[in-house]
Amino acid sequence: MSEGSKNILLKIQYDGTNFHGWQKQVDVRTVQGEVEHVLRFIAGYEVPINGTSRTDTGVHALGQCCSFTWDNPLPTDKLADIMNRRFGAGGLGRSGLPGDIKVISAHEVPEDFHARFSCHGKTYKYIIDRSGDIFERNHVYQFGLELDHEAMRKAAKLAVGTHDFASFQTSGGIPRETTVRTITDITIIQEGDRTIIKVTGDGFLYNMVRILVGTLLEIGTGKREASDMEAIIASTDRSKAGFTAPPEGLYLEEIYFDDGFKCGGSTCTK
Amino acid sequence: MSEGSKNILLKIQYDGTNFHGWQKQVDVRTVQGEVEHVLRFIAGYEVPINGTSRTDTGVHALGQCCSFTWDNPLPTDKLADIMNRRFGAGGLGRSGLPGDIKVISAHEVPEDFHARFSCHGKTYKYIIDRSGDIFERNHVYQFGLELDHEAMRKAAKLAVGTHDFASFQTSGGIPRETTVRTITDITIIQEGDRTIIKVTGDGFLYNMVRILVGTLLEIGTGKREASDMEAIIASTDRSKAGFTAPPEGLYLEEIYFDDGFKCGGSTCTK
Repeated sequence: MSEGSKNILLKIQYDGTNFHGWQKQVDVRTVQGEVEHVLRFIAGYEVPINGTSRTDTGVHALGQCCSFTWDNPLPTDKLADIMNRRFGAGGLGRSGLPGDIKVISAHEVPEDFHARFSCHGKTYKYIIDRSGDIFERNHVYQFGLELDHEAMRKAAKLAVGTHDFASFQTSGGIPRETTVRTITDITIIQEGDRTIIKVTGDGFLYNMVRILVGTLLEIGTGKREASDMEAIIASTDRSKAGFTAPPEGLYLEEIYFDDGFKCGGSTCTK
Repeated sequence: MSEGSKNILLKIQYDGTNFHGWQKQVDVRTVQGEVEHVLRFIAGYEVPINGTSRTDTGVHALGQCCSFTWDNPLPTDKLADIMNRRFGAGGLGRSGLPGDIKVISAHEVPEDFHARFSCHGKTYKYIIDRSGDIFERNHVYQFGLELDHEAMRKAAKLAVGTHDFASFQTSGGIPRETTVRTITDITIIQEGDRTIIKVTGDGFLYNMVRILVGTLLEIGTGKREASDMEAIIASTDRSKAGFTAPPEGLYLEEIYFDDGFKCGGSTCTK
């Protein structure tokens, strides 16, 4: 980091419906692309950002985080408001974020902080909805069948812990050194017509949460036994696990960092 | 109506976000176009429908109604389920409605019933939201300013009744014989971060509810006095009224028919 430059952590919400995921790609709309577009507008030069998670097409975030360095004199506590502001077409053209992304907070962080490498855990939330409400169709998985929550909780308990989760990985992700991960908690709650599954862990393989949810749904509908979870994990074979639940029900909810930064929900407190 | 043919009333919900309004047009996605597409698939021939209201691009419906006649032997009480069913691409291709339209009910109605001409009143709902929730951005008008509900209610009272509402009409709509309409009720309520304005009347001019809401918002933010409403109506001059509130906050909520059919909300009861 050059002298005078600042390392900044942004906490971001987005509705993933109209994005081809987080990661910047040529010719398609991505969250990273939109955020970098606005930062370039403010800075006058390219400002590459590091996101904590590369969420997929259609996946949402309540507490995605990203960090970047720059030497812009703008007070960091004004940055969120400035990035969120949308100017009319009559002015200099759009300089703020579109309506489906919002910066929740911006903080200066120590020089050695990095949104990806300083992360030691995340919570994902998955929403299953039986209401059939068409206005919610992009923000929940519309799944009409009754679910046996007790069976799902039994199976979830077997998944908590440190395991080789190779059965819960879609090929095509970033190559990883190991497929061993630690899930610290899975909570399954009912809220009216909704079943909400929250999964917390130190890290997740490609599509791991969605395959875990798909497997739990097959258990919840009686297609599999809760006790099958053990053998599915032990097999380290993707074909033994359940289907990949669709992206629209998934939210990156909260990110935990080494230095005590908690970056999720509606607050970002050190 | 030919012998054996049935007159059918459908009650429909839709999320207007991705539609160019209700009315069928060439080369753009409309609600009428999608509904007729599905009916043609079921009937094997074109089934033109008559909608009660021609909602605009981005406007939603909780209780739009439409009627049509056909001689299909399908039991009418099965029609909603069949129209809502979505088949995978592996079968005959999509034959059911897309996820942003839902048929709530289907009823046989007397031969002389017509969804447009038998209508004697409608309720529209307009939602203003201060939460800034990005997930709601297509379903509410995101408006951050504080509103003086008492001033808005005073002004609303002046609009209730039978008046020439020419000041509240955008040019370009269907030519009407008269611009006199009767508003029977305007209710303004607060629900958490939301202000909800419900307007009931015998009929509405083009953009009338949105211009009425825009005018009430200018009164609620102190840009105009509540008592100005009287002069605005009396002027019969569009330029004297407020701005046209955007479509995303507007819902066609309920339709009232001459013969006692009530077609809105989540029920459709005779």
